Amino acid sequence: MTLEEAQALDAADPLRHARDRFRLPDGTIYLDGNSLGALPAATPARLVQTVEHQWGEDLIASWTRHGWIDAPRRVAAKLAPLLGADVDELLIAESTSVCLFKLLAAAVQAQPGRSTILSQEGNFPTDLYVAQGLTELLPHIRLRTVPAGEIESAIDEDTAVVMLTQVDYRSAARLDLASINAAARARGTLTLWDLSHSAGAIEIDLKRDGCDLAVGCGYKYLNGGPGAPAFLFAAGHLQGRLRSPLPGWMAHAEPFAFEPAFRPAEGIAQFLTGTPSILAIAALEAGLDSFAGIPMSAIEAKAAALSQRFIEEVEARCGSEVQLASPREPSRRGSHVSFAHPAGYAVIQALIERGVVGDFRAPDLMRFGFAPLYNGFVDVLRAAETMAEILRDGSWDQPRFRERSRVT
Amino acid sequence: MTLEEAQALDAADPLRHARDRFRLPDGTIYLDGNSLGALPAATPARLVQTVEHQWGEDLIASWTRHGWIDAPRRVAAKLAPLLGADVDELLIAESTSVCLFKLLAAAVQAQPGRSTILSQEGNFPTDLYVAQGLTELLPHIRLRTVPAGEIESAIDEDTAVVMLTQVDYRSAARLDLASINAAARARGTLTLWDLSHSAGAIEIDLKRDGCDLAVGCGYKYLNGGPGAPAFLFAAGHLQGRLRSPLPGWMAHAEPFAFEPAFRPAEGIAQFLTGTPSILAIAALEAGLDSFAGIPMSAIEAKAAALSQRFIEEVEARCGSEVQLASPREPSRRGSHVSFAHPAGYAVIQALIERGVVGDFRAPDLMRFGFAPLYNGFVDVLRAAETMAEILRDGSWDQPRFRERSRVT
Repeated sequence: MTLEEAQALDAADPLRHARDRFRLPDGTIYLDGNSLGALPAATPARLVQTVEHQWGEDLIASWTRHGWIDAPRRVAAKLAPLLGADVDELLIAESTSVCLFKLLAAAVQAQPGRSTILSQEGNFPTDLYVAQGLTELLPHIRLRTVPAGEIESAIDEDTAVVMLTQVDYRSAARLDLASINAAARARGTLTLWDLSHSAGAIEIDLKRDGCDLAVGCGYKYLNGGPGAPAFLFAAGHLQGRLRSPLPGWMAHAEPFAFEPAFRPAEGIAQFLTGTPSILAIAALEAGLDSFAGIPMSAIEAKAAALSQRFIEEVEARCGSEVQLASPREPSRRGSHVSFAHPAGYAVIQALIERGVVGDFRAPDLMRFGFAPLYNGFVDVLRAAETMAEILRDGSWDQPRFRERSRVT
Repeated sequence: MTLEEAQALDAADPLRHARDRFRLPDGTIYLDGNSLGALPAATPARLVQTVEHQWGEDLIASWTRHGWIDAPRRVAAKLAPLLGADVDELLIAESTSVCLFKLLAAAVQAQPGRSTILSQEGNFPTDLYVAQGLTELLPHIRLRTVPAGEIESAIDEDTAVVMLTQVDYRSAARLDLASINAAARARGTLTLWDLSHSAGAIEIDLKRDGCDLAVGCGYKYLNGGPGAPAFLFAAGHLQGRLRSPLPGWMAHAEPFAFEPAFRPAEGIAQFLTGTPSILAIAALEAGLDSFAGIPMSAIEAKAAALSQRFIEEVEARCGSEVQLASPREPSRRGSHVSFAHPAGYAVIQALIERGVVGDFRAPDLMRFGFAPLYNGFVDVLRAAETMAEILRDGSWDQPRFRERSRVT
C-alpha cells in the first residue's frame, strides 16, 4: 500500500468524520486505544459543566436537578445499543473487577449443587484473580481452567458458570458467544463474559447470542478516560434469580428510606452498590457519545479492514522477523493485532520514540490496537513502515529501549 | 449573637483564610457539606490538567509519566495526617461500601471459629446492607446489632469483628474509638470503623486509639466531589493476617507480569482491586489539598464552636418548636447538628428556598453540617434566624414544600 492508496482509503472511509470527535496529539500515531482510549473532544467541556455548574453551583441539589441519581442507568442506556442489550439489563458501576465479582458470586449462589467456575487458561489475569478470591471466600467452589478449544466439552453438570473473555487481551482471538452460550445452556450452566477488549470495537449482540451475564471496561474502546467506570449486564430473565453479594444503599428498593434491612431494588439496579463517581461517569458518557449515529457494524467492518491491512503491510515489510500472534481471519479477531518478536519490548519502545504508540505484553508480544473511530489507513501504513525501519536499522537494540519500566 | 458578634468571630477565626479555597454560590449558606462537600477552587484546574494535558497529550504514557499508577497510594498519603494513620496503612479505592466489604470479609476470614459481626442498631444502612450481603454469601456468619450503650458488653468470644460508624449520620453522636477498641482487643475481636461522617471534620488518631480497620467517604468533609472514591485503612500489624476477597490486578505483587495465579502485593496494596478512576482521584486530591497546613485540632475546635453556637442560636429563637436530636456536649458529637420537627421535611425545603441548605433524614430530622474550612459564624447566625422566621411565619406549610422528592 502506498501513501496515496492509504490516503484514498481514508478519504473514502465513511467513519472518517468521527476522527474529529477526538483530540490526539500531533505527530502521534496512537495504536493503544485498546488499553486507554483517546480523549473525546467533548469530554473537557462535559467535565467543566459537571464540576463547575452542577457541583459548584447547585451542590447537593444536583442529585435530582441534574439527574446524578440516575447516572448509572442513564449512561448505561447509551451503551446498550453497542452491546445488543436492553436498557434494563445494563448498569455503569465501579471497575470491571468489582463488577465481575458481583456477577460471579451471584451466579455461583444461583446454582446450588454446582461447584465449578470454568474459565480459559490464559484468561485475563484479573478475571482469574477475582475468581480465585471468590474460591477463598467460598471453599466449596473451585476454579478450573482449560484451553480455548476445550471449553465447550468441559462444561458439565458441576459447572455453575463459565467465565470467559470474548477477545483475548494478547492475541485478540475471539471466542464464539452464541456457540458457547448454547453449550452452557444445554447443561444448565450460566455464562459470564468479559467484553473489555471487544466493547466498542466489534459488533456484539448479547441478546441474540444468549449471553447470561457480562462485564466490561469503560476506558478502552469506549473512551471513558483512565480508570473509567465499568459496565455490568444481567439478562432480564435471570435478574429475579440473582442476588448481589455487594448490596450497598444504591441497590435498595428505596435508597432514601434508609431502612435497616436490605430490600433489593427490582431488576438491574440491585447490582448497584455505593455512590458512584459522578465525574467519572460524566467522562464515560462523553466517551459513549463519540459513538453517536455510528452503527457497530460499520465499526467492526473498519476494525477488520484496518487490522487486516496492518497485518499485510507488516508482513510485506518485515517478513519473518516478526510472527503474527493473532488469528489471520478478521472475524476470529478483535480490533487489535499482536506480532511476536524476541526483543518485542525494545522494538515497542523504539516505535513509541518515533511516535507510533503500541504496547508490549510478555513474553514477546507487540500489540497494536485499531480504534475505528479515530484510527485510519495512513496510521496503519506509517506504523508498518516505522516498524520495518526500526527492525532494518537495528535502532531498537539500545540499553534505553531494553530497560523495562514497571508499567508497560 | 448579633450580626456584629458573628462577624467579629469570623474575623478572629484562624481558619478564615481557608474559605477562599472553595467556590460557593453567592447567597447560599451551605450546611450540607456533611453530605456533599463544596467545590474546592483548585479542582477545575486540576481536572483540566489531568484530562487535557495528561490523558489528552500523553495518553497511555501517563500511567508512569504522571504517576497514575501510584495515585491510590499517593493521594492516601495526603489523607494519612487527617486520620492519624501511617501512609502504608491507607489506600484510596472505589466506594465506602466496596471498601467496607473488602475489610469486613477479610476480618471475618481472619477470625476462624468466630461467627458474629457486631454492629449498632441504626448504623448507617449501607453498612448493614453490606454486612447482610456478606452473611448471605457466608452462611456461618451472622450480623447482630445492639444499641450504642450495649456495644462493649456485647463483644464476646464469638465476635469476629465489631463494625461501627464513629459519628452517627443522623444524630452526630460520636462513639469512643479508644474505649471500644480496647474492649474488642481484650476479647480478640477486630474493629472496623466507618469514618464517613467524621473524616475531615474532627480529630482522628487511628493509631493512638488502636483501630484495626477503617473505611470512609471522600465526598463529604473531604470535598472530593460527588461519588468521590473512598478510603480504606488496615493497621500495619494486621496486614499480614488479612486477605482481600476482591483481589484484582492492581493488588498483585507484580501487576504487569500478568501471571495467571494471584500473589498478593505486600502491605496495604493487596486491597486494591481494578483500575481506579484517575479523574475521580484527581478531584479527591484537590479536595484533600484544601486541608494543607491546617491541623485537625483547629478544625475540630472550629466544628465544635460552630455547631455549639448553632444549637444556642436555634434554641434561643425557636424554643420548644424544635428538639435537639444531637448530643449537647461537643466532644460527643461530630460536626453536624440535628433538630427534630414534626414537619422537618417541609421546613428544610423552605430553608433551602431561602438559601440555607441543610437536609432531612426520616422521620423528622433536620440536619445541618458545619464544614470548618468554609462555614463561618455568620452562616450559623443566618441559618438560625432563617429557621426561626420560617417557623414563626408558617411559610413551610405549603404543598410544594411538603411533597417529597425521591432524593432528600
